[in-house]
Amino acid sequence: MSALHLYNTYTRRTEVFETLLPGRVGLYVCGPTVYGPPHLGHVRGPVVFDVLRRYLEFLDFKVRHVRNITDVGHLVGDVDEGEDKLQKQARLEQVEPMEVAQTYTLAYNEMIRLMGVLPPGIEPRASGHIIEQIEMIQAIMDAGLAYAVNGSVYFDVLAYAQHHEYGKLSGRVLEDLIAGAGNEARELEGQEEKRNPNDFALWKKADPEHIMQWSSPWGKGYPGWHIECSAMSRKYLGDVFDIHGGGMDLLFPHHESEIAQSTACTGHNPARFWVHHNMITINGQKMAKSLGNGITVDELFSGKHPLLQQAYSPMTLRFFILQAHYRGTLDFSNEALQASEKGLQRLWKAAETASGLKAAAHNEYDVNAIVAACAAAMNDDLNTPQVIAQLFEAARVANLCNDGKLALDAANIEALQQLFKVWMEDILGIRTESAGDDQALDGVMQMLLDMRAKAKADKNYALSDEIRNRLSALGLVIRDGKDGSSWSRN
Amino acid sequence: MSALHLYNTYTRRTEVFETLLPGRVGLYVCGPTVYGPPHLGHVRGPVVFDVLRRYLEFLDFKVRHVRNITDVGHLVGDVDEGEDKLQKQARLEQVEPMEVAQTYTLAYNEMIRLMGVLPPGIEPRASGHIIEQIEMIQAIMDAGLAYAVNGSVYFDVLAYAQHHEYGKLSGRVLEDLIAGAGNEARELEGQEEKRNPNDFALWKKADPEHIMQWSSPWGKGYPGWHIECSAMSRKYLGDVFDIHGGGMDLLFPHHESEIAQSTACTGHNPARFWVHHNMITINGQKMAKSLGNGITVDELFSGKHPLLQQAYSPMTLRFFILQAHYRGTLDFSNEALQASEKGLQRLWKAAETASGLKAAAHNEYDVNAIVAACAAAMNDDLNTPQVIAQLFEAARVANLCNDGKLALDAANIEALQQLFKVWMEDILGIRTESAGDDQALDGVMQMLLDMRAKAKADKNYALSDEIRNRLSALGLVIRDGKDGSSWSRN
Repeated sequence: MSALHLYNTYTRRTEVFETLLPGRVGLYVCGPTVYGPPHLGHVRGPVVFDVLRRYLEFLDFKVRHVRNITDVGHLVGDVDEGEDKLQKQARLEQVEPMEVAQTYTLAYNEMIRLMGVLPPGIEPRASGHIIEQIEMIQAIMDAGLAYAVNGSVYFDVLAYAQHHEYGKLSGRVLEDLIAGAGNEARELEGQEEKRNPNDFALWKKADPEHIMQWSSPWGKGYPGWHIECSAMSRKYLGDVFDIHGGGMDLLFPHHESEIAQSTACTGHNPARFWVHHNMITINGQKMAKSLGNGITVDELFSGKHPLLQQAYSPMTLRFFILQAHYRGTLDFSNEALQASEKGLQRLWKAAETASGLKAAAHNEYDVNAIVAACAAAMNDDLNTPQVIAQLFEAARVANLCNDGKLALDAANIEALQQLFKVWMEDILGIRTESAGDDQALDGVMQMLLDMRAKAKADKNYALSDEIRNRLSALGLVIRDGKDGSSWSRN
Repeated sequence: MSALHLYNTYTRRTEVFETLLPGRVGLYVCGPTVYGPPHLGHVRGPVVFDVLRRYLEFLDFKVRHVRNITDVGHLVGDVDEGEDKLQKQARLEQVEPMEVAQTYTLAYNEMIRLMGVLPPGIEPRASGHIIEQIEMIQAIMDAGLAYAVNGSVYFDVLAYAQHHEYGKLSGRVLEDLIAGAGNEARELEGQEEKRNPNDFALWKKADPEHIMQWSSPWGKGYPGWHIECSAMSRKYLGDVFDIHGGGMDLLFPHHESEIAQSTACTGHNPARFWVHHNMITINGQKMAKSLGNGITVDELFSGKHPLLQQAYSPMTLRFFILQAHYRGTLDFSNEALQASEKGLQRLWKAAETASGLKAAAHNEYDVNAIVAACAAAMNDDLNTPQVIAQLFEAARVANLCNDGKLALDAANIEALQQLFKVWMEDILGIRTESAGDDQALDGVMQMLLDMRAKAKADKNYALSDEIRNRLSALGLVIRDGKDGSSWSRN
């Protein structure tokens, strides 16, 4: 495909991506609720939308990427009842809720950094946009689509549904929702204030002991979970913007509510494209605390979890995620991760091999065909597994050329090197690990390669073998080629 | 001294540090205005207050450390006129002000991370606390100490001074201020709204084109620079808390205004201790854009600035800062930094030496005397240069013992090792650089040491010398001791 196409959850169609303003993209992605350490369930979204953003920037769009931090309003159970997740954690840790927010925002951003995810351009906090949320709630009330009861404000779903489509994004049918909401919800605390069980909170009255509360036209309280994203996306991206992203688990009620809130307030579905990634399962099961299969990223990176056979590096995890299409499920298992680790090593080695290739006078392979295939794959709704398949083809070409079995001229070698640089590093964001402070190691290894070459020239094979074997034990592999030896990490 | 003493700028006395609540410390430190890359002037405060916090935690206090991010309200020229610094930078970069805030907040926090500064427990943003600021302004107006004019609100310094002390912290005398404020200030835009030129803005009316603005009882506008710290410190630490820190450049008008605002609102000076660090000069000169001597931390760490003879590492800079007492001036020069670099290397080597010492049956040095001297120095208003002098004494002891010239028994060797761990690493926060991924290098170096030992045993001195010399060229030094050889980075 010659232009970027994206699957739009809202229309259930793959559509040509066209921007509201030429050359600019407004991208809003739902971020974390910062009340616990980041776990496996947190990594797929940031990686998927990072690749989308990188690709948009590669296509020369100027992207304004907004990802929020939810530090208030997200209640335990994800519905309108129960304690605020931050406040609950603060009570458990005996600290201020904002200390909880800080701890886990830092942990999340460190995970993001390790995973090679570029930081968003704006990172707004829900608690920092209370005024904007109050103003939006007021506008919804002015439109007659919300009502105040006892210091709380609820969105009136039935009134809204009389003039607007409700449930289109998530595919829910209001009649079914009403029938299903029935008895169980009625028993939850606070539900009796609602005109209809499907109504959702825009503002909740705070009990005196509730730490997080602000003054509002309806008294002291705090915002509902959904209104923050509507208010913050509108503030930084306008009434209508290009892409709203998030996980499929947010389709309902979160994103459905966002559409209703924005439409009630501005008359518009806020996003032209709704893009949703699928979830990660573990050994075929949903992740859940009760199943004991929740793995934090720290555990992943250190290997310290009963379900893990070894540690997996951030880049292995990133590569694993991109080996699946973002809309497909992704099942985490040791076997799958180990396969990703091997595949990734193969690509890195091939990229290194490509950087040292010698040009032939004639040419036997058109590298630009691979480049074109990569572009076509990305344009086809971000088909990253296809891009990776093309990178493996590029690796095959690099190795054949290095082994003298395929001739590439200078232009094609250059194209091959660029391909790894642009498609693997820049767009997929797969960079070499431990790139940092390896200068000393490089120098020492070069010295050992020289000593080994001299030992071989002196026919001192005991020494040359010893060098090779001891390095191998350290995970450092020597590879002998036509133009001398090179080394790499195993 | 057996208890921590701190110099209190407010009382101009060194006082015993006693907390408001037993075992707990509320610490508020003024953070950066995030409109440009962090420079040399930004590093001293975070390091000084990081050491204070680390020492308080060492003393078993539970510290709630709040450091704000100023992302709105700080006007060019640091007075009540001119454009907002963030908005101006956003205009120059053609982005949203919050994109400017994000870019430079990330840059600041990366600098902080490299410098080994622990992140604060709460990192509130001025733009995220507009409601709290409005409420505080309202309370000051209710107390009759502020007045609204044309949609702006000013603090009434003369009315305040009738019943409260104004100028005590900074040592300014109101009569002098009034005489001095005279003509020049009068000519600045907006000054005609003030009853007195020394009045300062609590809330500024926003022009329609001003991007950052919020609704308030006085119309659309944005907060003054000073009110954010009063509102945020109060929110997270209460009406009165233990320590307020910042640079001496903030004494007036910023901290003087904070005291006036809080006193007007709550009746109290908000902080029991006001702690101020002195500034950094460059080659004896004040840093200023016009002098061309503003060095960013990136330039420092890379060595890319006309005034720099080489790159300096974050830990070298940290060590340099702690070699001066925080209330003294600190002059940056290549000579001084190079001396710090050498001194730091010496301490690191000594710590490594200490970790390998062999215990004697008898003992010739009381290491606990050094420990006691370190504690006495820190208790004496954070005398870090004295602590460092004691660390050099510890280094001398370690080296003497290693050379067989001083006997230490097991208990004293243990105390010496602990001393480096606790006082150098934990309290001063001086950690080994490039601590990260050196396992491979360690392994390879051990292999080279073995090869060299074998070469020597075989009387192959050509080889053993070659290994030593080539490593030396890489900055890796071999040191031969009684129990074999060891290596370290030069």
